[in-house]
Amino acid sequence: MSETGPTIGDVGEGATLARIFPLLPESRRTVLGPGDDCAIIAVPDGRVAVTTDLLIEGPDFRIGLSTGYDVGWKACATNLADIAAMGGTPTSLVVGLAAPADTTVRFVEDIARGFHDAATALAPGCGVVGGDLSTAPIVMLAVTALGECDGVEPVTRSGASIGNVVAVAGQLGLAKRGLDILFDRAVDSDGNVDPAAVAEAWAAHPIEVSAQLRPEPPIGAGRVAALAGATAMMDVSDGLVLDARRIATASGVAIDFDLASIGDIDALTGGEDHAMLACFPVNATIPSEFRVIGRVAPGEGVLVDGVVFDARGGWDPFADYSATSSQ
Amino acid sequence: MSETGPTIGDVGEGATLARIFPLLPESRRTVLGPGDDCAIIAVPDGRVAVTTDLLIEGPDFRIGLSTGYDVGWKACATNLADIAAMGGTPTSLVVGLAAPADTTVRFVEDIARGFHDAATALAPGCGVVGGDLSTAPIVMLAVTALGECDGVEPVTRSGASIGNVVAVAGQLGLAKRGLDILFDRAVDSDGNVDPAAVAEAWAAHPIEVSAQLRPEPPIGAGRVAALAGATAMMDVSDGLVLDARRIATASGVAIDFDLASIGDIDALTGGEDHAMLACFPVNATIPSEFRVIGRVAPGEGVLVDGVVFDARGGWDPFADYSATSSQ
Repeated sequence: MSETGPTIGDVGEGATLARIFPLLPESRRTVLGPGDDCAIIAVPDGRVAVTTDLLIEGPDFRIGLSTGYDVGWKACATNLADIAAMGGTPTSLVVGLAAPADTTVRFVEDIARGFHDAATALAPGCGVVGGDLSTAPIVMLAVTALGECDGVEPVTRSGASIGNVVAVAGQLGLAKRGLDILFDRAVDSDGNVDPAAVAEAWAAHPIEVSAQLRPEPPIGAGRVAALAGATAMMDVSDGLVLDARRIATASGVAIDFDLASIGDIDALTGGEDHAMLACFPVNATIPSEFRVIGRVAPGEGVLVDGVVFDARGGWDPFADYSATSSQ
Repeated sequence: MSETGPTIGDVGEGATLARIFPLLPESRRTVLGPGDDCAIIAVPDGRVAVTTDLLIEGPDFRIGLSTGYDVGWKACATNLADIAAMGGTPTSLVVGLAAPADTTVRFVEDIARGFHDAATALAPGCGVVGGDLSTAPIVMLAVTALGECDGVEPVTRSGASIGNVVAVAGQLGLAKRGLDILFDRAVDSDGNVDPAAVAEAWAAHPIEVSAQLRPEPPIGAGRVAALAGATAMMDVSDGLVLDARRIATASGVAIDFDLASIGDIDALTGGEDHAMLACFPVNATIPSEFRVIGRVAPGEGVLVDGVVFDARGGWDPFADYSATSSQ
């Protein structure tokens, strides 16, 4: 990485943590914050939503394409989206970070700043309440998010029923286009990243590149959908088709998309936008954050304009990771 | 690793998860279990304790010294201990696992079995409610534990006051002796592990080796201490002296240990036993799980028999990790 200055190996665990803590966002639900064996978080309605995700250098991000700030932003945003996809409101995060000893303290501080700005922008009142710092040959983040449902029933994947309207809030396909642009312009055939080309990609395609590196999932739309009576919901992390198939399977129905209202193939198969995909009763008032893109139908799997759509879509870290390709 | 059979790269993420789920322990507080964007956990008293830890191949365990079962057991036990150290009862865990694609499915199943058996033995009713699986050049576990306080106030590090009795539940120094035995017998000067020598170490020193590889922290003692009026508590993960210094600093006092009641130097400085270290009012009835090992005194830091103890003790992953030494 390009930053200079002291490394976390020079400074040690305790001093690095002391520099990170003031940068992190605070949770409005904190009863006891970082620094003890546990944090304690208030959960007024007596149910807590919990989700965890790993972000690993290589399959999930590359240093050079992503800054530390980008890595922190995305790690935060993707976990917030999982809480929102239950109809919940994110309240707190704990973050494990492992990195090589020669990682600069500055890089780690930038990760913390990314967490701060993503939480502040996407889920105000959600904060980082604890974590762990260790050493590994690559950079890895392990983020766990907690959320509250505050009186609404959690929205699962299994409640869709025939005749429901299928709607989406947020972007579809932009993050994949951003990744394609970055690989086309900035990654050579050996997997090396050209920093100048990354800057040019940002300048030429800021919407697509930021969708990939600093996604802005519509976190508030999750609770709005739950209050509007959503029957099933998830966030589109692995691509619309693959994730819709998960709702279809869990609910024992088919989902039939209207291609004209979705757009192009990238929107059907590209992942990482973390849009909210929700099903609503046909007589529900669809919240303004959502646009209708299909219907729940009898059968199984995913249809497009009534025709079975069999392309796998989506992403498996073992099958699909390549150092030199965005495919 | 020595196991043969299909690898997680052969089988893929979904099929590996399908094989793991039935092996995992179930939580008695589950409202919604694994398989959705989040799990939902009941928190009857409206406060949840949360802690997270990374376990990384290299600094935290070595494959060959530890089996997959051992890795899962220890990852579970150490996180349970952090909940117990607040006076809480562990209710649920989420687990991120990253491993090379050539890791056998069997190894991952063994990790799950280790989680199952540790949770069942140490904190019945606590289960794994979610997780993530990805690929990395080494094996890494990221565990987050949730717990409930069920009517007792969480016990922090900062409440010790002068005159309090200092007591400990669980082992001190055994885990460090186990690590020394394993390195002496089974790790050569290049850091290579001899499996036959590991088996001999288990046979010759089962108490010490199991304390290192399959620690059994006294999880129930945490809540017992809280109910008995403990003023401060933590689990001894980085060594008695280093961790006692954390209580002393947070509470603005000194902690004076009685060497005769502690034993030897390994008990003062060896880490990873995850004993519960607690302070009690002088007129409290000390629970039977605890033995008195010192007093809270005026001043700062740690004393032994009234004399300032300055040896650092404890462990920093950046400063202290060596591939060939247990020191």
